[in-house]
Amino acid sequence: MTDLLRTRSDTRLRVEVTEELEELFARLRRTAETYGPEFLQLWHLTARHAQGGKLVRPLLLLETFDALSVPEEVPHRGEALRIAAAIEVLHYAFLLHDDVIDGDLLRRGHPNLIGELAASSLDGVHPGVATHWAQSGAILAGDLLLSTAHQFFARASIPAHLKERLLDLLEHTIFETTAGEFVDVGLSDGVITSDLSTVLQMTARKTACYSFELPLRAAVILAGGSPELEGRLSAAGTHLGLAYQLQDDLLSTFGDANIHGKDPYSDLREGKQTAIISFARMSNSWLHIEQDFGDPHLSPERAEHLRDTLRDCGAESFVLGLIQEQLSAFYELLAASSETGSMPTSVRQVLLDLVARIEGRES
Amino acid sequence: MTDLLRTRSDTRLRVEVTEELEELFARLRRTAETYGPEFLQLWHLTARHAQGGKLVRPLLLLETFDALSVPEEVPHRGEALRIAAAIEVLHYAFLLHDDVIDGDLLRRGHPNLIGELAASSLDGVHPGVATHWAQSGAILAGDLLLSTAHQFFARASIPAHLKERLLDLLEHTIFETTAGEFVDVGLSDGVITSDLSTVLQMTARKTACYSFELPLRAAVILAGGSPELEGRLSAAGTHLGLAYQLQDDLLSTFGDANIHGKDPYSDLREGKQTAIISFARMSNSWLHIEQDFGDPHLSPERAEHLRDTLRDCGAESFVLGLIQEQLSAFYELLAASSETGSMPTSVRQVLLDLVARIEGRES
Repeated sequence: MTDLLRTRSDTRLRVEVTEELEELFARLRRTAETYGPEFLQLWHLTARHAQGGKLVRPLLLLETFDALSVPEEVPHRGEALRIAAAIEVLHYAFLLHDDVIDGDLLRRGHPNLIGELAASSLDGVHPGVATHWAQSGAILAGDLLLSTAHQFFARASIPAHLKERLLDLLEHTIFETTAGEFVDVGLSDGVITSDLSTVLQMTARKTACYSFELPLRAAVILAGGSPELEGRLSAAGTHLGLAYQLQDDLLSTFGDANIHGKDPYSDLREGKQTAIISFARMSNSWLHIEQDFGDPHLSPERAEHLRDTLRDCGAESFVLGLIQEQLSAFYELLAASSETGSMPTSVRQVLLDLVARIEGRES
Repeated sequence: MTDLLRTRSDTRLRVEVTEELEELFARLRRTAETYGPEFLQLWHLTARHAQGGKLVRPLLLLETFDALSVPEEVPHRGEALRIAAAIEVLHYAFLLHDDVIDGDLLRRGHPNLIGELAASSLDGVHPGVATHWAQSGAILAGDLLLSTAHQFFARASIPAHLKERLLDLLEHTIFETTAGEFVDVGLSDGVITSDLSTVLQMTARKTACYSFELPLRAAVILAGGSPELEGRLSAAGTHLGLAYQLQDDLLSTFGDANIHGKDPYSDLREGKQTAIISFARMSNSWLHIEQDFGDPHLSPERAEHLRDTLRDCGAESFVLGLIQEQLSAFYELLAASSETGSMPTSVRQVLLDLVARIEGRES
């Protein structure tokens, strides 16, 4: 996920989150050290990869929390920072299990944890066995990080009624994300029939929930905000999250790989079920598209041709329209909140900064 | 794990745990229902398989808790029941991820969750793809259950100082179990060199910790017992857990499959690195054993021959000796506690009942 937050306070917040994550991983490393060299290596790789992210989620939480808190009375600022770090840890736990499920050894062109771990064990070990070992390590490291994220939520030192809301939110997030991911796998594997509403619902669950709703809602809870405000930010998060992911799909297929940095056309080679494909499926061009879509060995020329066919059949315009729908719904929600005075101006500004990044995004 | 607890109060406790688990799964099913038919099916299978266990861990927790609590003043009995259920949920989360790592589609001769889920999707779907979908489902269901177990610990309504001890114990257990499992996979994959001390340490971490130490220590914490008593029960749990697992290894290789119910010689076919094999590796018979060990297509005749060679080289006697060492250490610990009066008689009785089951075990 790209750099969505670059506001005035961004640098300071980034330093805070980075230091919190460093402390978290350093503390756990002292525990990992007692479990022998292989487990310590797994932990080192996990800590390094988990700390390499853009920190979009924790920064969104802290920006929103700070916007909601009157500076003189911020009783849970430290807790907000710890929950922000925990959300980044949760994000990486999901990525690890995602990479196992997708069989990925690379992320943005570089070896991921699985790729590095497999490569480190190659002395006389069959590559398939090394990958098995590395994927097993990724499952277990994901479990450890999932557990760590829960521990931070469980230990948050906030009043009992806020703690319960926070734990409810975490439970909801885990359900949404695992359900979304399960449908995503079912769509890719052809076990679930791909149609637009299923794909959009899957996207909202798999991405929008934990990446946008979770940090926004957690910020409201930690700042002691009302369930009504939490509900409005939840809705805003869904719209922005969906817009973000749809844009991600467009960039992967139609964007400039030199800018977005991903393997060009990997979505097309993997047969990823996106809204682009759901639209194309209903068009007259599908018979042509179907022949190349999901072919792992698709040549760059055929891939470019496939991209052009997708554009010509109207899929790009259609998804741009879906993004506009989500953004319009977001602006309407903001306007309604403004009329009723039900959202602090400072929080509106955080959301407006965020949507500006989404609208201007190229990577 | 077999039926280790059959004391007077066993039936009543079993009913309590079963009802608590039913309530837990029914509540979560209401959430799962909102996520479409595929996810609901995953949830149904998960709930059914997770509730099919022998409940050894939750019963051990409750037996110990009740032994520690004076009937008139049991403030956290309800919390103990919930944590007992959570430990069973944690156990099944580990089993699910274990089955993914081992590529298992069966458990004790019947399709496991992965086997059932894969079979349910076979209309026109390639079997390999169906297995991929099912294994992905097992990773995600495991994540959901791991999260659920943590939620129960996080929501336990007990004083803050006990809550912190309980969360520390959970964190320790997750570290021990994932580290033990990682080494186990490394041994099987030949990435980690197999020697006796590594195998024994792996066994203590992978099995003894969450199956014996966790319920015993959780019971002490929930009953408000001292860290000293917790430490003694932790040590007792390690000895009994190791004895239990070593006995499990012996039964799998030398026991009567008609009684223990597992696939006969599956450990030998899978090349499982047990203490039996660590001993055999150092014997003169290893050159013969090595030829057949880990061959997935080993005939029943060759498997029987391999078993006999393992027995003749002294591996069975050696492991019987290791079990005796652990049991002796356990009895010494109990005797010392008795002299200093540092363990309630009722708790000693729970442990003596448990060790009697281990000593008389045939399945």
